[in-house]
Amino acid sequence: MENEKAIQIGLIGLGTVGSGVATILKAKEKSLEALVGRRLVLKKIAELNPERARALGIPEEILTARAEDILEDPEIQIVIELIGGKEPAKTFIRQALLAGKHVVTANKALLAEAGNELFLTAREQDRHIGFEASVCGGIPIILALRQGLVANEIESIFGIMNGTSNFILSRMTEEGQPYQQALEEAQKLGYAEADPTLDVEGHDTAHKLAILMHLAYGLPMDLSVIHTEGITRITPLDLAFAREFGYRVKLLAICRKENGLVEARVHPTMIPVSHMLSNVSGAYNALFIHGDAVGDILLYGLGAGMMPTGSAVVSDLVDIGRNINLGITRRIPRSSVSPEERGAPLAVKPFEEIETHYYCRISALDRPGVLSKVSGILGEHGISIASVIQKGRDQEGAVPIVMMTHGAQEKALQEAIGRIDQLPFITDRTMVIRVEDPSLI
Amino acid sequence: MENEKAIQIGLIGLGTVGSGVATILKAKEKSLEALVGRRLVLKKIAELNPERARALGIPEEILTARAEDILEDPEIQIVIELIGGKEPAKTFIRQALLAGKHVVTANKALLAEAGNELFLTAREQDRHIGFEASVCGGIPIILALRQGLVANEIESIFGIMNGTSNFILSRMTEEGQPYQQALEEAQKLGYAEADPTLDVEGHDTAHKLAILMHLAYGLPMDLSVIHTEGITRITPLDLAFAREFGYRVKLLAICRKENGLVEARVHPTMIPVSHMLSNVSGAYNALFIHGDAVGDILLYGLGAGMMPTGSAVVSDLVDIGRNINLGITRRIPRSSVSPEERGAPLAVKPFEEIETHYYCRISALDRPGVLSKVSGILGEHGISIASVIQKGRDQEGAVPIVMMTHGAQEKALQEAIGRIDQLPFITDRTMVIRVEDPSLI
Repeated sequence: MENEKAIQIGLIGLGTVGSGVATILKAKEKSLEALVGRRLVLKKIAELNPERARALGIPEEILTARAEDILEDPEIQIVIELIGGKEPAKTFIRQALLAGKHVVTANKALLAEAGNELFLTAREQDRHIGFEASVCGGIPIILALRQGLVANEIESIFGIMNGTSNFILSRMTEEGQPYQQALEEAQKLGYAEADPTLDVEGHDTAHKLAILMHLAYGLPMDLSVIHTEGITRITPLDLAFAREFGYRVKLLAICRKENGLVEARVHPTMIPVSHMLSNVSGAYNALFIHGDAVGDILLYGLGAGMMPTGSAVVSDLVDIGRNINLGITRRIPRSSVSPEERGAPLAVKPFEEIETHYYCRISALDRPGVLSKVSGILGEHGISIASVIQKGRDQEGAVPIVMMTHGAQEKALQEAIGRIDQLPFITDRTMVIRVEDPSLI
Repeated sequence: MENEKAIQIGLIGLGTVGSGVATILKAKEKSLEALVGRRLVLKKIAELNPERARALGIPEEILTARAEDILEDPEIQIVIELIGGKEPAKTFIRQALLAGKHVVTANKALLAEAGNELFLTAREQDRHIGFEASVCGGIPIILALRQGLVANEIESIFGIMNGTSNFILSRMTEEGQPYQQALEEAQKLGYAEADPTLDVEGHDTAHKLAILMHLAYGLPMDLSVIHTEGITRITPLDLAFAREFGYRVKLLAICRKENGLVEARVHPTMIPVSHMLSNVSGAYNALFIHGDAVGDILLYGLGAGMMPTGSAVVSDLVDIGRNINLGITRRIPRSSVSPEERGAPLAVKPFEEIETHYYCRISALDRPGVLSKVSGILGEHGISIASVIQKGRDQEGAVPIVMMTHGAQEKALQEAIGRIDQLPFITDRTMVIRVEDPSLI
């Protein structure tokens, strides 16, 4: 047995997640050794701010301020990149791969943008990139798609994949808080960054969706094909109306395959209160997956944080460690089957061609004929109305008219709303929230 | 590349799940080949009743009535055992391993009883037993415990793992049906067997729990340490009272580690309606897992059926196929770390020592002093009452008195109930349902 020979690991970035990884590797040393077949040794940590290392009781001698000390160390077999952002993370990962090291990363932004290139380099170098931690923290979704659900064509994924947005929407729903107040509370509690753009505008969710679509459909990672909208325009009024119709609003990532086309979109979505995704509150994430064999599967858990994401990073270390132990690489020859290979060509559906149901909150002066004019325009675009709520007049004479449509095409809806918003009695831009049909989700 | 060399598979038992496996292997041939690196070929199927094979369009020439034709075929590298039951399944698996073949099985009853022995044989023969399909069908729980959550100490698992019982309880809850009627409906719909004992008495759930406890804690599989109660005594009245207290009743498998002891029990359990497990209805299964790093995780999906369980079997075939492709075995040196190895000794807690909350429905004649006498006995055993519901008298003068206790020990509760049931004004055996503290679950 080569059990004596430990696997040397280098960690670049001792932030929140890095601290979780260091903590787990130390606390679970014995059991991880038994589970891998070799010892996992954290040989070096590159970090510019050594304060946290001291707080964690990490010995001074394994600390360095230079990532090169890890990338150029021939003994180190696995490099964990946890600095985030695009550069120098991308260069570090590339250098690690070219130096024959395996890589583990939680960097979804980088993978969504440069994943195709990095995975190709890994392939050429016969090295592995572990990225379980890049999507939904501690939830083993990458593993499920790469291994647990391989017998399935993935027909759809509906995901709550951003804890910050979900926390804010939960607060707004439960406490009736306006967006700004809920955001400030999230910032106070550490659930939102000082600049929350990446989270609340849906970009972080889109990064994760790009990675999942690659695994589920073999499509190259490409943010430009994902329609992305955030939650900043949602008001407590919309959430109250949603409740009246039996829905809650969640920031969802949606991909769905139909007739060779894949829908790819991130936007606030009304889902029936009876659906399991409706009950995913606060900082939790959840993925609702439909596979053609397995049917509906839900995976739920903490999508971020020191220990949950650390758990995912360590699961990748164990996976790679098991391969190193047996002297193998590329055990999983393919994570996904590309559209060409699967025989059925597959492309992303243009967003304006999607069909869904819509919630439209129209702000209009309280005059006779408004409802008739608005519903007339919708009708001209082939959009039929499922139900309407018109509430009593408010102080300025403007009233919200809320309509739920039957299934309609995005293009038709946008054109109709474009015309409606030009009408003289309209006092504010119409708020549109897409509604998932309870039978589909 | 040895890509040319297909992996030959033999299937023993073309029942419901076997048909799912054959269907998937045929339909997904191309993509599975890409994902494994080699073709997966179903070379032979042993089945006594060839009708189903004809219906599935399986060519006559790969059918046999003799399992030996598979077990003795030197070309076959993986044997799928899907006949269920103890014998001859156990002999077949043993023979397959001794003949140097890998095995995939969905047979939880066999593994719970003879798993230790079979895993030992597999280890000696350097072969793999895939058993993803043995617990909760299409939900990738074995994979999660063996790989996704390896960084965690599993602190607890709460599982709804039997679709039949869950369907019956859902019906009883939603429609107010008595047990017998809900059972008959389940039988009519094919969710329950003609003899439903294994499912409704909790044994099937206990089989699965034994397997999970082996993976989570390294304990040998041993049904005798799992306290097992079924759902046959539950009445619609209990479900109605549960609702009044804010709970639903589910047949739960529970294991929970505390101070070196593991609780292991299967019984009807009241859980708060707000908990995600409460909303798992019908034939669905769900596992709520708490890991020390990852926190709470929920996995949800169909726990049985042709395609979901077939999906799990095929995921094992892919896993083993990837190893065959690389010429490796035993990639995962250990699925779990035994109590001795983990340094912290671990044993199963005697059932009478568990502490939980209790729902007690006492049937008593409507006389003065009853409540005082009953609560006095509970008090003498150190059990304090959290709330009481006493409903108006019924026709025979007997009334249900329902009490929810604070945390109490099983032994004390049983002793108290034993005394209460001897009281002269008691008209029926007291119904006890354990209640999980919302803060723990």
